[in-house]
Parts: sequence; structure tokens; C-alpha cells
Amino acid sequence: MRNIKLEIAYEGTRYQGWQRLGKEQKGSSIQGLLEEVLSTVLGEPLQLIGSGRTDAGVHAFGQVANCHINSKMELQELHSKVNRMLPADIQVLRIEEVGEQFHSRYDAKGKVYEYHLDVREVPDVFIRTRALSVTEPLQVEAMRRAAKRLLGTHDFAGYASKMNDGRTTVKTLYSIELLETKGDIVIRFYGDGFLYNMVRILVGTLLEVGQGKRTEDSVSVPFVTRNRQDAGPTISGIGLYLSKVVY
Amino acid sequence: MRNIKLEIAYEGTRYQGWQRLGKEQKGSSIQGLLEEVLSTVLGEPLQLIGSGRTDAGVHAFGQVANCHINSKMELQELHSKVNRMLPADIQVLRIEEVGEQFHSRYDAKGKVYEYHLDVREVPDVFIRTRALSVTEPLQVEAMRRAAKRLLGTHDFAGYASKMNDGRTTVKTLYSIELLETKGDIVIRFYGDGFLYNMVRILVGTLLEVGQGKRTEDSVSVPFVTRNRQDAGPTISGIGLYLSKVVY
Repeated sequence: MRNIKLEIAYEGTRYQGWQRLGKEQKGSSIQGLLEEVLSTVLGEPLQLIGSGRTDAGVHAFGQVANCHINSKMELQELHSKVNRMLPADIQVLRIEEVGEQFHSRYDAKGKVYEYHLDVREVPDVFIRTRALSVTEPLQVEAMRRAAKRLLGTHDFAGYASKMNDGRTTVKTLYSIELLETKGDIVIRFYGDGFLYNMVRILVGTLLEVGQGKRTEDSVSVPFVTRNRQDAGPTISGIGLYLSKVVY
Repeated sequence: MRNIKLEIAYEGTRYQGWQRLGKEQKGSSIQGLLEEVLSTVLGEPLQLIGSGRTDAGVHAFGQVANCHINSKMELQELHSKVNRMLPADIQVLRIEEVGEQFHSRYDAKGKVYEYHLDVREVPDVFIRTRALSVTEPLQVEAMRRAAKRLLGTHDFAGYASKMNDGRTTVKTLYSIELLETKGDIVIRFYGDGFLYNMVRILVGTLLEVGQGKRTEDSVSVPFVTRNRQDAGPTISGIGLYLSKVVY
């Protein structure tokens, strides 16, 4: 069998998230829809292994998945047939053949997530489903200083929505960038792995710092207490993008 | 009465266009929806005068309209109340009080329209409702040379969808810019006025030049023949934006 790796972009607005659920409505998950299209084009049943889930409404421009197929179809032909059959809010960016052992989840060494904020006084009508509108002023430098305290290896249990069934909650954040252009702020997180809702809670906490609702120091407290209550709110997934999976 | 001028942005995807029709479904035109929200906030009936129509699915980041009101409400209060009540795909960018005589349609000295093309091999999932995807390669320099031939004062009857009830079809195009960034092409038209579907037909014609389907010279033919058949197709409104009204 061949093992093929796909890089995928999607606007998550219309979907319940990446993950196919047991009995889903046709086309309600991105994984389910992709599997359906791939197996139609290839004429064989198959299962996609995603690098990880994304929640309802969350976007991606670098989700990775792999699947094992029998078909000998040329990858270029497969790629264009699949994209033509997919709805315009899901597109496969790249397809390549990889070694038999490649596993998109187990082999992931790191991930990059971005969170997009629209800080215009009047929200931009064209990015309303892809950025969170924040109209009150933000102290971006305070957010940058707080972000520095989040870097490195910590127990992020307090920054996750629920405990991960005994799996480690110790993760490493390699970098957090706050990129400001007129009207937009992008917060980019690069780490070796992310717990459930971790990026959304990190952004919710940094926003509270930017709004003067909490001190820069306070962002370190959840590392010590491991208490979800010590971190900020889980912010809407509307501005969240999975932008890269590093192997 | 006060005469107020509004600058408006909208993503036209969900709407039948700017113009309120006789019996419309609630909220199906941008004008109708804006009038409803304004009169609710102000507590008086009113009529918006738009600078001109935009078709179904067409966008704007600089539509202008004015209306006469009795209310003495502060404009800042009106602005924020109206934006909070409007759906996220229509927002008022600015409100100001203007002279009694100002008329957003009659006083318009010129307009700027933009047409957005997505020329990526795999279309960008995030701009699918706001740019036309063209995956075959385009000869942009040929399009630029053809665009130069369109500049100036001409009879654009052949570049319009129908004759405008005896009104003049002689218009002046001051500039046409083709702006290329990686993956995107924006064609920006600045002229003293535009006939029905004129921008869409101009873009359809320039695209045929870019695809090698017609010569650069041929774009002048409709000026002489005034024949719609001599111009290119009316392209989808999906990538069209009214970007500025000049007074």
C-alpha cells in the first residue's frame, strides 16, 4: 500500500471541526468530508489520520493528514480531482507519497497556531468569520512581556480545558510572536504540542493582560497551581488557525 | 432637517445587492436593511440615497449614502448604535453631517472599483467569496497594455449590459491599475462614472487578453462599434468591490 500525506487548508466556519464523529451528518466534519471525496476519487474505502483535531469554527492553512491507499493513481491527477470535488472552503494544498511508517499525529515534532484579532474601531466586514473583533484598546507591549513568561517548558494543565487522560501536560513553547499591522494583530504560537483549548486560553489570558485586567506576572501562576481558574477565559475559536505541523 | 452622509462597507455575498426593491424579503438588500436599522435607532422613517447600485454578491468598502433626518442624536452615538444592530457583514465606517444640498448620487464626481483575482494554483479557501479564482496562467503585461487602450474618454455602450434609457454612455476612465502580489491580482478602475456591468465586462475582456484569447488591440473595437458582442464576457460579481466614491 502507498502512504500519502496531505496538507490541507480550510475555513472552519461551516464545520463541526476536523474530527469525524461516529454518526455524523454528511459533510459536517472536515475529516469526514475529505475521506468521502478521497474514497470516491480513488474508488476504495480509506481512513485519514489527522495531525490533531481542530474545534468547530477553527481554521487551518497547514493541517496535515495521511492515509494508506491501494490505488496507483498519479498524485497530480488525484490532487486536482479531489480539489475539484471539494467545496471551496476546503482545499488540499499538497499531496506527496511518504514512507510506510509516516504517521501524521505520532511523528509531529511541533505545531504552529495563529490567533487573528481585528482591532479596528469598526470591525472589518471581510474577516468577520476569521478574526476576533476587539474594539477596546490593547496594551500590546504588556502582552509581549507577558508572552515571554509563557515561553519554555512548563506544566500547562492550568491552561487546558480538561486533563488529558493521564497524558503529560508538560509542553514547551518555543516562541510566541505578536505581529501588529494596521488594524490587525496576529499572535503566533510555536510549540512541541498543545493541550485541548490551550491556545484559546493562552490568548484569552494575554488579552486580559492587554486590557489591564490582570498583571503580566499573573500569567505564570497557572504553571504553579495547575488550576484552570488562574488562567483567563477560553476565547472564541473564530480567530484560530492551525498554520503548520512540523515533522 | 439634518443631512447625514454615511460611508459603508459590506460583504455582499448574502445580499441581493444594494438596492431595495418594491416588496423585498426582510433584510435582503443592503439599502433596505440599513434603512430599517437607522430608522429603528432614530425612531423615524427615512430613505437612504445611495451613490449607486451594486449587484447581488458585489462588495464595498466605500459605498456612500445620505439621508435626511429630524433626530438630534449625536452622530457618534448613532454610529455605534447602528453598527451594533447591523449584521457583521455590513458596517458603517463613518457618519458625518453634510450640507442640506449634498446628494450622494448626483454629486459623485468619480468612483473607484476594484476587481480581485485569486491566481493561486490551489484557490485560497479564505477569499473564496471575495475573489474570482483563475488557475490558468495570465499574461499580466499584455493585460496592462490592453488596459492602457481603455483609458480616457470613450463611448462605453459596447462595454455595458444594456443601454441606459437615453443617458449618455460616454465615460472617462482616469486610471486602471493592475496590482500583483503573490497569488493575487487586483485591477483598480477609477473613472467619472460606470455603466451597468461595465467593470465586470472590462475585467472579462482583460482576462481574455491575459489568456491569449483576444488581441490587445481588440479592446478598442467596442468603442467604435458600440456592440456588446465585441467585448468579452460579463464576469462574475464575486471579486468586485466598490472601493471609493469621489466628491
